[in-house]
Amino acid sequence: MDTVVRSRSKTVVIGAQQPFCVIGERINPTGRKKFAEELKNGDLSTVLVDLENQLAAGANMVDVNAGIPLVDEPELLASVLTLIQENSDVPICIDSSVIEALEAGLAVYDGKALVNSVTGEDERLEEILPLVARHGAAVIGLANDETGIPETPQQRLEIATKIVNAAGDHGIPPEDVVIDPLAMTVGADTEAVTTTLETIRLIRDELGVNMCLGASNVSFGLPRRHELNAAFLPMAMAAGLTSAIMSTAQVCVDSVRGADLLLGHDAWGAAWIAEHRARQAALAT
Amino acid sequence: MDTVVRSRSKTVVIGAQQPFCVIGERINPTGRKKFAEELKNGDLSTVLVDLENQLAAGANMVDVNAGIPLVDEPELLASVLTLIQENSDVPICIDSSVIEALEAGLAVYDGKALVNSVTGEDERLEEILPLVARHGAAVIGLANDETGIPETPQQRLEIATKIVNAAGDHGIPPEDVVIDPLAMTVGADTEAVTTTLETIRLIRDELGVNMCLGASNVSFGLPRRHELNAAFLPMAMAAGLTSAIMSTAQVCVDSVRGADLLLGHDAWGAAWIAEHRARQAALAT
Repeated sequence: MDTVVRSRSKTVVIGAQQPFCVIGERINPTGRKKFAEELKNGDLSTVLVDLENQLAAGANMVDVNAGIPLVDEPELLASVLTLIQENSDVPICIDSSVIEALEAGLAVYDGKALVNSVTGEDERLEEILPLVARHGAAVIGLANDETGIPETPQQRLEIATKIVNAAGDHGIPPEDVVIDPLAMTVGADTEAVTTTLETIRLIRDELGVNMCLGASNVSFGLPRRHELNAAFLPMAMAAGLTSAIMSTAQVCVDSVRGADLLLGHDAWGAAWIAEHRARQAALAT
Repeated sequence: MDTVVRSRSKTVVIGAQQPFCVIGERINPTGRKKFAEELKNGDLSTVLVDLENQLAAGANMVDVNAGIPLVDEPELLASVLTLIQENSDVPICIDSSVIEALEAGLAVYDGKALVNSVTGEDERLEEILPLVARHGAAVIGLANDETGIPETPQQRLEIATKIVNAAGDHGIPPEDVVIDPLAMTVGADTEAVTTTLETIRLIRDELGVNMCLGASNVSFGLPRRHELNAAFLPMAMAAGLTSAIMSTAQVCVDSVRGADLLLGHDAWGAAWIAEHRARQAALAT
């Protein structure tokens, strides 16, 4: 099952037989005090720096979040999306928990966006799915609901199934629902990652939809986070994860592209070898 | 099921609930012309350099191979093993396809060695298992036989089962048989790694024995091999691999130790955090 997202002129396909879809996580003011302050003051210059760096590092999409307390998020999100679209053709994952911000974002987005996100909560489903359907977008569905984050893979599968069904009721086909199996930090729960991996396998086998998760969560609070994320991603890919909102640090992207090759999604290593040659050429100049 | 190996004074436990057992691959003249030449001339100095580097990088065991054409392998292997035992207490994986070399190696080895390796070939089983049993050693069993390297995980499982049963007939318990599920290069076969991963899962679920493979094989002939190996190892670990003969390049060992943490085999990240502090301290001096 392939999920197709688009900018004005560029298409990205997320799917089990495709190279992994790397969604750059960086354009997000959460935990970035200076960046939040800049955005608050209408200074969007860092957005372009983050955009360029992530694209240079190999991001296939970028996540864009503009949630800052006491800021008009719909207006800010629309401005940031407009700026990015003026400066690149990368397809965008529009990220907000505020329905008006998603609405404003989708209004200015030219293409088929990935909306991040809806949950299994009835109220959220009824608010967000009509909006997604109206814009012909795809949507990330988080496998949690009114009762919180389920501990077992089976419960997460049930919520994922509920989201896929609810989307269908709104005319959104399963290929436009990307389930987030939820990655929690292993620093707080030593079972967190094994639960996530089992959830990924279960959703792949039972639902067969694409999946996306915030990969950096697993390493929260621990040192050498990039290295931990780099170890996590191949495991999740082998279990069936098809995309992630993630750091584009080189060790993380190398890990994903290496796993692509190893899992047979980069035939004869063509992309891997091309990247190697590009780096050698860059070193030689 | 835990496999226990020992040097004179040090014990290493290989098991599904243990941190991954990193077996340094470096002390092996295959493909190392200069090293082979040195060994041929009785110069063992590089052995000690390789030993020290691998231990500093975090190897739990070292593989030792002394196979050089036209060289008295039993004598050379015994010399190298003696030298290593004089200079460290690391448990050793004694690596040869020559029965007389394994015999000479086991004769000078003080502890419980891991013998690398036997195959599912009747003749090899009848030659090597009595030797392993006599020395109370553990043995790596390669999942191939007279017919070559099986293409399917099911066929590899059958050979693994045959080896475990044959070992039992010689009084070697299943915990002293470590199966090599066979890692072939993905550069020659895009399905190679997925087949290996399925084999690992199958052997874990059906036999439950420990497993060890030559991890670097997967990247043979490709550029940036360490990065590929680093992406492979977490996938194999999540599938159930419990040890590997591998490069101790930092990106590989970081990947393994990160996966240990993520899979719940480094409670609260104690080892991961200790390593981080040690590196910070080393930088500060």
